[in-house]
Amino acid sequence: MTKNQVAKLIESHAILQAPMAGITTPELVSEVSNHGGIGNIGAGYLSISDITRFIQQVKSKTNHIFGINLFVPEETTINQAELKQAKEKIKELVPVYSEDLPDEINITNIFNEQINLVIKEAVPIVSFTFGLPNSKVIDRLKKADIYVIGTATSVREALEVEKSGCDAVVVQGIEAGGHRGSFTCEDALIGLMSLIPQVVDSVDIPVIAAGGIMDNRGVKAAKCLGASSVQLGSAFLMTEESSADDLHKAAILNSVETDTVLTKAFSGKSARGISNEFIQKYENHTDQILAYPYQNSLTKNIRKLAKENKDKEFMSLWAGQSVRLSKKQTVKELIKELKK
Amino acid sequence: MTKNQVAKLIESHAILQAPMAGITTPELVSEVSNHGGIGNIGAGYLSISDITRFIQQVKSKTNHIFGINLFVPEETTINQAELKQAKEKIKELVPVYSEDLPDEINITNIFNEQINLVIKEAVPIVSFTFGLPNSKVIDRLKKADIYVIGTATSVREALEVEKSGCDAVVVQGIEAGGHRGSFTCEDALIGLMSLIPQVVDSVDIPVIAAGGIMDNRGVKAAKCLGASSVQLGSAFLMTEESSADDLHKAAILNSVETDTVLTKAFSGKSARGISNEFIQKYENHTDQILAYPYQNSLTKNIRKLAKENKDKEFMSLWAGQSVRLSKKQTVKELIKELKK
Repeated sequence: MTKNQVAKLIESHAILQAPMAGITTPELVSEVSNHGGIGNIGAGYLSISDITRFIQQVKSKTNHIFGINLFVPEETTINQAELKQAKEKIKELVPVYSEDLPDEINITNIFNEQINLVIKEAVPIVSFTFGLPNSKVIDRLKKADIYVIGTATSVREALEVEKSGCDAVVVQGIEAGGHRGSFTCEDALIGLMSLIPQVVDSVDIPVIAAGGIMDNRGVKAAKCLGASSVQLGSAFLMTEESSADDLHKAAILNSVETDTVLTKAFSGKSARGISNEFIQKYENHTDQILAYPYQNSLTKNIRKLAKENKDKEFMSLWAGQSVRLSKKQTVKELIKELKK
Repeated sequence: MTKNQVAKLIESHAILQAPMAGITTPELVSEVSNHGGIGNIGAGYLSISDITRFIQQVKSKTNHIFGINLFVPEETTINQAELKQAKEKIKELVPVYSEDLPDEINITNIFNEQINLVIKEAVPIVSFTFGLPNSKVIDRLKKADIYVIGTATSVREALEVEKSGCDAVVVQGIEAGGHRGSFTCEDALIGLMSLIPQVVDSVDIPVIAAGGIMDNRGVKAAKCLGASSVQLGSAFLMTEESSADDLHKAAILNSVETDTVLTKAFSGKSARGISNEFIQKYENHTDQILAYPYQNSLTKNIRKLAKENKDKEFMSLWAGQSVRLSKKQTVKELIKELKK
């Protein structure tokens, strides 16, 4: 599979499965690619050994194009006093699951190793969220014939993605579930209907539309607005092949469009999910949320315990604004609907 | 012109000019209707005599269908102490234009007189913002063969619009400029790409899409998503026939998509406009904003003086998120582009 073939796919209305970190499995990614979509590994939180195994499993299940998404690391630090204060607050807000909180949080930057790995494994597509890597990294990927995608939430960010040398840009509307990909300002919060044509008029690289698209109507609308391809998260999360928790799927199925909110409470970065007790408890304590990725590490065990206890009130129920359009279906059925 | 003819128009991809209160003129409304769109009078803040004159002038300039928009009044009151405090705050924040602030604000409810007038003048379309009138009012309009439109920002509101007996519903995405039409909760803030199909699946009346649509791409996308018609504000505000202040037009022309924000500072109700000093000064004093429509009355003279002084920093520069798509053109050119 050459990079030219990938480029042709992206330019001619491909269906990308959003690389949902913590949700994607080799089964989901390969199933999407096997049925004419482009599966994407959400590798953001994974170790090198986990990513290696993930890629190899996907390769064993499909001969088609797939991608991997990496989080661009940030230079944030916290001190012990901040961690202590954040722990006290979370114990106060969520006493039931706060017995085993971390005494220290050490973030290891494995970004270079991740880049080495995706080059070694010749993953056809690498996409980035939370910013852009430096030009040396982009150059290495391009020399390795890898198709590179950046993520933007505004025209300004899309221009930076293009300038960095990326081959395409995912533009994420305010409708999108999960983490916001914003990296130049607090958050642009632009509706996709408005964002797509403004980005399309400003950049020359293909635009991949993301946010609130769940069926054929959204695919066609994105095309009308000038998008080359679309990327869907919630719709793939809801498929039978997705290993998302049943409580998560049920919450999406039973929600309405006004139930999702943006919150930093789970990870320290803004993300859209179905409102629950955890989010609500933090609403008036946003100043007690640690910077990303420290808040993510802090809340990790709480989310794990909540899941074990089948308690959706303290899980991260990521979802986009189009929850009313969600339904249980197979990957094959979903892609057929999207391409009809 | 019978109501059936109006219904046919709305069902077959009509272009509605949004009823921008304080911006629309008889020239703009009639010009839109004369070129195959549907012009709408923004009568929200007008007196009975002004509305009468407006309707008669429109009628003298066009034989085509036009509409009028009314604000549904709310039962809010403020006391003298609240007014005094709000005046002190605004004097502190905006000393330069605060010499002549009102000593009391009396809101006269002329809604019934407005209804009597639109029936007497047989205005073909009446639309409502900020809620729904009671069933008696809707019945009277329908008996008078008037086509009635409600405004919604969520599926829940669209269902209420349908239930009230309205003939169609304007669904307003987060992209839209000017006032939010929300009336059941704080504000839904749903992107249009997500809102249209969810409303279309939930109601049987025609859906008119509003928010961020500036050209043919948006019209086609709205159609793909299931909308029967579209309504555009900023695009018509920017036309040569629009009497919007030149500073307002220039601000839109020179803005980017991240420049618009939602604010209650001008009127007490959330509205989208280009950020300026007035909005920014109120950012940390939102608790000092009077309820609608009292804040609107309080800031009226400030906005008037700012306009006279050509000072855009204290004017309300309403605009949607698609400002990068704005351009100077005639109503005829715009409608031709939208229908191509």
